[in-house]
Amino acid sequence: MVPAMAISFQTHPDRYKHWTLTIDGDRAELVMDVQPFGGLSDAYELKLNSYDLGVDIELADAVQRLRFEHPEVKVCVVKSGQMRVFCAGANIPMLGSSTHAFKVNFCKFTNETRLSIEDASHHSGQKYLAALNGTCAGGGYELAMACDHLLLIDDGASAVSLPEVPLLGVLPGTGGLTRLVDKRKIRRDRADVFCTTSEGIRGKRAVQWGLVDEIAPRSKFDEAIAAAAEKLAASVEGTKGPGITLDPVVPTIDDNGNLVYQYVTVELAQDARTAVLKIRTPDEAQPTTAEAIQAAGASQWSLRAFRELDDALLQLRVNHLDIGLVVLRTEGELETVLGIDATLYANRDHWLVNEILAFQARVLRRLDLTAKSFFALVEEGTAFGGVLLEVALAADRIYMLEDEDEKVAVAVSDANLGPMPMSHGLTRLQARFLGDTAPIGRIAERKGERVITTEADELGLVTIAADDIDWDDDVRIALEERVSMSPDALTGMEASLRFPGPESADAKIFARLSAWQNWIFQRPNAVGPEGALTKYGMPERPTFQWTRC
Amino acid sequence: MVPAMAISFQTHPDRYKHWTLTIDGDRAELVMDVQPFGGLSDAYELKLNSYDLGVDIELADAVQRLRFEHPEVKVCVVKSGQMRVFCAGANIPMLGSSTHAFKVNFCKFTNETRLSIEDASHHSGQKYLAALNGTCAGGGYELAMACDHLLLIDDGASAVSLPEVPLLGVLPGTGGLTRLVDKRKIRRDRADVFCTTSEGIRGKRAVQWGLVDEIAPRSKFDEAIAAAAEKLAASVEGTKGPGITLDPVVPTIDDNGNLVYQYVTVELAQDARTAVLKIRTPDEAQPTTAEAIQAAGASQWSLRAFRELDDALLQLRVNHLDIGLVVLRTEGELETVLGIDATLYANRDHWLVNEILAFQARVLRRLDLTAKSFFALVEEGTAFGGVLLEVALAADRIYMLEDEDEKVAVAVSDANLGPMPMSHGLTRLQARFLGDTAPIGRIAERKGERVITTEADELGLVTIAADDIDWDDDVRIALEERVSMSPDALTGMEASLRFPGPESADAKIFARLSAWQNWIFQRPNAVGPEGALTKYGMPERPTFQWTRC
Repeated sequence: MVPAMAISFQTHPDRYKHWTLTIDGDRAELVMDVQPFGGLSDAYELKLNSYDLGVDIELADAVQRLRFEHPEVKVCVVKSGQMRVFCAGANIPMLGSSTHAFKVNFCKFTNETRLSIEDASHHSGQKYLAALNGTCAGGGYELAMACDHLLLIDDGASAVSLPEVPLLGVLPGTGGLTRLVDKRKIRRDRADVFCTTSEGIRGKRAVQWGLVDEIAPRSKFDEAIAAAAEKLAASVEGTKGPGITLDPVVPTIDDNGNLVYQYVTVELAQDARTAVLKIRTPDEAQPTTAEAIQAAGASQWSLRAFRELDDALLQLRVNHLDIGLVVLRTEGELETVLGIDATLYANRDHWLVNEILAFQARVLRRLDLTAKSFFALVEEGTAFGGVLLEVALAADRIYMLEDEDEKVAVAVSDANLGPMPMSHGLTRLQARFLGDTAPIGRIAERKGERVITTEADELGLVTIAADDIDWDDDVRIALEERVSMSPDALTGMEASLRFPGPESADAKIFARLSAWQNWIFQRPNAVGPEGALTKYGMPERPTFQWTRC
Repeated sequence: MVPAMAISFQTHPDRYKHWTLTIDGDRAELVMDVQPFGGLSDAYELKLNSYDLGVDIELADAVQRLRFEHPEVKVCVVKSGQMRVFCAGANIPMLGSSTHAFKVNFCKFTNETRLSIEDASHHSGQKYLAALNGTCAGGGYELAMACDHLLLIDDGASAVSLPEVPLLGVLPGTGGLTRLVDKRKIRRDRADVFCTTSEGIRGKRAVQWGLVDEIAPRSKFDEAIAAAAEKLAASVEGTKGPGITLDPVVPTIDDNGNLVYQYVTVELAQDARTAVLKIRTPDEAQPTTAEAIQAAGASQWSLRAFRELDDALLQLRVNHLDIGLVVLRTEGELETVLGIDATLYANRDHWLVNEILAFQARVLRRLDLTAKSFFALVEEGTAFGGVLLEVALAADRIYMLEDEDEKVAVAVSDANLGPMPMSHGLTRLQARFLGDTAPIGRIAERKGERVITTEADELGLVTIAADDIDWDDDVRIALEERVSMSPDALTGMEASLRFPGPESADAKIFARLSAWQNWIFQRPNAVGPEGALTKYGMPERPTFQWTRC
């Protein structure tokens, strides 16, 4: 069923309701001034710069545009447009009135947005300064912690806080607990005190404990912002640009809910709870030099197709909850995508190529973290090469047709050998052959070549290789079986099997932290009629079941 | 409230209902023959060597006794006493009829048991061989994967399988998913196929995929067991022993449910949902030489007190669900515990010392993984030194009295500097000062000395240092506040803050895997009236809500 009110993830600074993005040379300001009645739903009021998904979609857009449209920016100051409040965090009535699935998807997206801020800092030299002019609570402090420098006003009142546990009976689940101890390295017992102290911590103690980097009195707050921004800017070398314009990525949506973009289509088989996501390689010539890459801007396939894929994944997550299985297909020429990859990797020091590759990596991580099953089907006419092979390697299974004519093939490019790490830091090939470098070496030797089915199977790239006779039945049965299983069990299974090996702070946010948060989001103590999330803002206190487990 | 039927974790091979342990020189056999009507409850029948908590308590006891009572054993063959079935896994009617809290505690304990098998292999040179004579499904295969070598009968029928996802709508949550990809390094897409194929995989393919190490036809099965055991035994150097006898650890339980052991007491304040767990140092002289350690056996404090602590933690987890906060106290002389530690670490190459230290480490990990808040109170007359300081460092907070007389002190020993790793591989000091070795260096310099409150505070060992005037109020308010908060939120918070830094396979079992399993254990698709766990064994199929999140 297509939801009555599908959520769009596309926006533009001209249309922001809650944020203002201004650019001045190598500085940007991103001012949060959430419109109380501008939420995605009328069921709640976004008081005190609290946010809903709509507010975060604008933030994600701003972070993305800063990288592509304003690469000259070295520092972005995140400010509040409201007096004595930076951000009160995720809106509680919104959470209280949302379905479990929406809460899970909301947290996942906001987590990805905060990671995209850190990604911009690491990979694009765009540093973020959180200028905390007042209350900075819950998700507000989690947003601040995603920034490189936290400056808190020292006015005897303003504090940073994570009041989720004592006030709401849920976790600071947008990376809060993880960033506290893993990123900011707050001592775990102090983190315990901080996370159970609803009023938070302010002033010198906030600096002493490492909760913020700096404090400044109101009279010197602007001065301190300027000085900290100056210092951050000085830490970034070189200049980049000129920026390109990100044109809209808006699919045509037909009556069935099918999404048609320029290079990506999503066909929904609602009854089968299955979608076919297809990525086409371009017919149009693609740039082959740095100059042409700059000139082509957002129109080049490597960027456009991945922006479409990104949007399609978000649509599938949020607007197509009952779709359990996504069949990944590609269409076109292997040589085309190999050629595009070759150009990109030959020009990696170009700022725009750097951005395109970092973005492709983020989209692939979005795929890894999408709670749907993914099966890639490699057949005649498909083009699973390079970065599109990486799409297949993100899938739970890869089916490959063993054809007599040996027309079916995949191909490896540099995209498969390092620059597209998963959120736990391994490449998809490293995760596939955990701790064993030999198979990756054998695969790397074939870089740029057509690898036919028998070879791909031998190299460990294929889950099931089937001949013409078996193919249709094998695939049909696999799809039917998959969508017959418990969607919850599949989500937990895929979240475990997709991430063999180590965990990074990023991965821990989606593992140890999010899984616990999702658990709590179902518990009567949070969401039952007497739960803390339900009772928040009401005169009576929540009633807890005290069983500890 | 004290449960009507408190579960005891104490047993002995003479009383095993479900296992037989036999020793023959450096070989042991552990034969599983679960008595269908011998479960902890009459509500279910333990068919096909399926297990409940009672079965696993015996297994845990056997693994522990092998280490202490039979250190000469180099290989333990785990076999089934039933025809054509090794083990069908956790009993489904038992799971289906259990509370959420019981399921969580059951899985946690069985996980710890399987980790104890791996710990015996790594730290005691006792290797485990799983002789799979037939059906090896779900928890049965998870148990097998905890062993060093998996030998599967090749009879055209017997398979290993993880049918939880397709049949039960839950996860292979006793380490299954993690051991599959992290320990056995099964390729993730094959793991996906395996975990969704209810009939499992047998014969050559099971070897080829790495699911088992070896197959043998029925006619050569015993021969293959002997050969594999021989090979495992040859991999273990040296001889150890003679073993000691583990005497019973049975607390006196009074009307209030208070537990009184020799060195450990647990006082329950049911109304305050708080327990005080106190560990006394011994008045009796403790061994000071290797010979005396061997002679003292299970009576020495370093072993006895930790066996009591272990039992107390299990009792608190399973029999006192409403206790949310455990106050950790010690009583005695700092010098006593420092002396005991000094003797142990001077004799680390003695087999029994090795076992005692490895056991202390396991008990401390059990503490880390207990879903209760822990506050350590360091006052006059307490003895938080060495391994008892490690108990405090496992706590969520450490309160230390700042007394004018400077009588209150803690002390560091070798126990705090390496040999008691948490399940993610860091010491508690490394987790406390994540990525910063300097504070650990400063603390190590004070080894063996009394460290008074102001010094301990400066060294970062204390959460809250309070003077005589504030102490009572500070502590009282902290305890009251803690037990007023959502127990679920506290569990998720503590599970996150206690484990800063990296994750190991062990830690992932309790993080990524268990948190997801706990989530699924609450979902209607598993435990609702139409859920897969509820409907298992009934003629009708489960009905799923298809929302994916």
